[in-house]
Amino acid sequence: MPAGFTPRPSLGVPPGPGYPGLVAYHTTLDRATGAAAAAAGPYGAWSAERRRDLLHACADALEAARAGLVELAGAETHLTPERLDGEVTRTTGQLRLYGDHVAAGRHLSARRSAGAAPGGADVWTIDVPLGPVAVFAASNFPFAFGVPGGDTASALAAGCPVVVKGHPAQPRLSRRIAEILASAIADAGAPEGTFGFLDAESADGDPNKLSIELVQHPVIKAVGFTGSLGGGRALMDAAAARPEPIPVYAEMGSVNPVFVLPGAIAGEPGREQWAKTLAAAVTGSGGQLCTKPGVVFVPDTAEGGALGDLTEQLIAGTGPVPMLTAGMAAAHRRWSEKAAASVTSPATPPGEQEADSRSGRPFAVRISAKDFTGDYREEHFGPGTVIVHADPAEYPALAQALEGQLTATIIADDAADTDRSAARELLPSLVAKAGRVVWNGVPTGVAVVEAMQHGGPWPATSAPWSTSVGTEAVRRFLRPVALQGVPADLVG
Amino acid sequence: MPAGFTPRPSLGVPPGPGYPGLVAYHTTLDRATGAAAAAAGPYGAWSAERRRDLLHACADALEAARAGLVELAGAETHLTPERLDGEVTRTTGQLRLYGDHVAAGRHLSARRSAGAAPGGADVWTIDVPLGPVAVFAASNFPFAFGVPGGDTASALAAGCPVVVKGHPAQPRLSRRIAEILASAIADAGAPEGTFGFLDAESADGDPNKLSIELVQHPVIKAVGFTGSLGGGRALMDAAAARPEPIPVYAEMGSVNPVFVLPGAIAGEPGREQWAKTLAAAVTGSGGQLCTKPGVVFVPDTAEGGALGDLTEQLIAGTGPVPMLTAGMAAAHRRWSEKAAASVTSPATPPGEQEADSRSGRPFAVRISAKDFTGDYREEHFGPGTVIVHADPAEYPALAQALEGQLTATIIADDAADTDRSAARELLPSLVAKAGRVVWNGVPTGVAVVEAMQHGGPWPATSAPWSTSVGTEAVRRFLRPVALQGVPADLVG
Repeated sequence: MPAGFTPRPSLGVPPGPGYPGLVAYHTTLDRATGAAAAAAGPYGAWSAERRRDLLHACADALEAARAGLVELAGAETHLTPERLDGEVTRTTGQLRLYGDHVAAGRHLSARRSAGAAPGGADVWTIDVPLGPVAVFAASNFPFAFGVPGGDTASALAAGCPVVVKGHPAQPRLSRRIAEILASAIADAGAPEGTFGFLDAESADGDPNKLSIELVQHPVIKAVGFTGSLGGGRALMDAAAARPEPIPVYAEMGSVNPVFVLPGAIAGEPGREQWAKTLAAAVTGSGGQLCTKPGVVFVPDTAEGGALGDLTEQLIAGTGPVPMLTAGMAAAHRRWSEKAAASVTSPATPPGEQEADSRSGRPFAVRISAKDFTGDYREEHFGPGTVIVHADPAEYPALAQALEGQLTATIIADDAADTDRSAARELLPSLVAKAGRVVWNGVPTGVAVVEAMQHGGPWPATSAPWSTSVGTEAVRRFLRPVALQGVPADLVG
Repeated sequence: MPAGFTPRPSLGVPPGPGYPGLVAYHTTLDRATGAAAAAAGPYGAWSAERRRDLLHACADALEAARAGLVELAGAETHLTPERLDGEVTRTTGQLRLYGDHVAAGRHLSARRSAGAAPGGADVWTIDVPLGPVAVFAASNFPFAFGVPGGDTASALAAGCPVVVKGHPAQPRLSRRIAEILASAIADAGAPEGTFGFLDAESADGDPNKLSIELVQHPVIKAVGFTGSLGGGRALMDAAAARPEPIPVYAEMGSVNPVFVLPGAIAGEPGREQWAKTLAAAVTGSGGQLCTKPGVVFVPDTAEGGALGDLTEQLIAGTGPVPMLTAGMAAAHRRWSEKAAASVTSPATPPGEQEADSRSGRPFAVRISAKDFTGDYREEHFGPGTVIVHADPAEYPALAQALEGQLTATIIADDAADTDRSAARELLPSLVAKAGRVVWNGVPTGVAVVEAMQHGGPWPATSAPWSTSVGTEAVRRFLRPVALQGVPADLVG
């Protein structure tokens, strides 16, 4: 146990051999930020190859602890072992991918203008890390967007130390992952302070206070966050109010509209396929995905009615699903009851009292386009969705009336001219509103690849020109520097 | 004259034939922003080739009016005809370059991950304009950073309508340029509202109020600004306080430190060459450049003393130079007097009363490193600089103590091992502090090329990962959208 480190008994984590002497493990804001500031220069000067090796070592250490982590995560999140196991794989793959990306130099802007400066000197760019990054772990992806998630991976890949705040709903998992990462990072020879971890509680027990203090700490140069609009906005406001404002890369709310065109559901097989696919996307992981289809527009035709019926039945037929926290389960219950009350005659009532206070009963509410107002347009976290029956000719106008989105989806018959023509008319509105447009799929399942854009106009994110998933995420934590006539052998 | 357009008699501009019926010319905030919002969709859908043609047409129209514009600019700015003529050339070249850049597709992120999505669909990116951009014309480059400057050119190249606020010190020039651009843009067939212009005065005569209203108008999606730290910060705060926060790309203050290494001035020819070069960079354009060397570190040796003597004499020997406004001249006088009073025995007093209230007398103050504190570290706009005599071994520490800078410069003997070794030690500190590092040159003269980075850490700019000069400036006004499996023939 490092000197000065005092485990919090309130977290239920026993002190003792579980806490090795971790070089970069800190429990107070001042210690973590001070160490991060000291690490910024030396770690920022590391070669991309060394950073790749560090990220691979982090991935290896998580793999080695996989079984225990999945168990611990299951206990704190109520997500299934299969889902959590897959998420570990995604997370370790992400760490390795971002390391490989920088080692291959693919993060570099690498612009060169030969002889362009006054006097004929060359001008070219290098890219330098911004400095210490504050990362806020999200609860719904305890690995992929948690302590070892995309923000941590991309900041470390960029050469920035990170100070990660654990999520209050997962105190033991957050701390255990932090131990593993800190140990791997120390073993890789990184300077103390390259990785710092803060428990979700501040000294006086107010987690929001700690978050604001972290964002406003002078050594912090950028922020990564995934969570609610309210939380993201609070961090943005705190960052903007600093003597030195800093960027906040916040991924917040989205209803991820899906537009079903008539051709795709003209026949029963199409209706069945899409009803199953949509129901699974709404209820999977308890509907607690930022890309869950929260609004599905279906044609106001007999076929659209049949699709709505089937989708609603499949969703309602899914048994209660465990949710991340009792608070989220209660919020879902309130949403379902309010939604059920707002329609004259819901086909399926929101159901009996859930089996336990942390379960949510999947629920679809069905309305017509004229009733698509107010709360229905706001993100709802949980296994629920809004099925809107509308004239497909109105889809572009309905899309234009939406706020910014992470995703927007078209479901169509590839071979039907009418669907293709309707899609052509609808696409500009979707491109204008969303960071990703999906064709004949569902928006859940975000591929961690170079071309991924997980962003979108406000309020989906704070910075729609950036992505929080995919290798371009690294670029958020870099800035270019132009060198003018500098002898190349003197740099780097 | 367009309906509803009322020239402001207070600006001294006669109504009449000087105001043709300009489709996109607006005088009130509501009209300009409303038209820009309406133009965003159709103009954003223009092909890159059409945008190139529009930008070339703007350049051609400015060229055709060159002589009159230079004369008008001279009357309002007091800059020399030679300087202004060169600036027109730079500005028209910039408009054409940005047009060519987008027509060649060099602004596109163009990422593609084949078969990467669940189900094997391709994921690839397109880039879409953010929407209407508010541009604030700067006073010190009435063309290159003025109404037709880099922010306007890059936003139009990106496919964003612009609403430009003229600079209050150049009411006639701003309006004349706006007329020319509006006419050229209308002739190019662009939708009304693609270009809007606001006089610097708001209805009730408070230009700051108009600026804030413009930044906070809901249709505005991004802001381009070049000017003071105070002005930029006010716009940033206004943008951050919006219900939908938007990015402000503000280029603000910088002292542009120059570090002279001993080898470069070991001999008299070197000293003379660099004294002349530095004096010209300090006094050129009245020292009213954001890249003016505001602090020159010279060795605390006999040779450094000789360089300081010569540079100081050359600067002081330059006669009073006309400044942009009486306010700037007064501020320069106050700075010079304060600086002179702070040193025990200035070699050259700041001089007699200036010839007129809009002139500034070039002045160099010389201090030792221990006195390099407070005001000396802050940007001073005008023909003055601070020569700091320091031990070259202290240069890295002095650099680390500086705030963020647009530029930092090393002057060295390329062939001297001692200089190269000192530069190698100094460079990391300069890279950490500046957006551009110059070797054996002066930072004035910013090449408008692809590799240029005109940015830098706070307070030099609000967004050091962006540039306001060079073709990458276009990217500030775009965001990527990922398309997942979308049939390519249905897009764009």
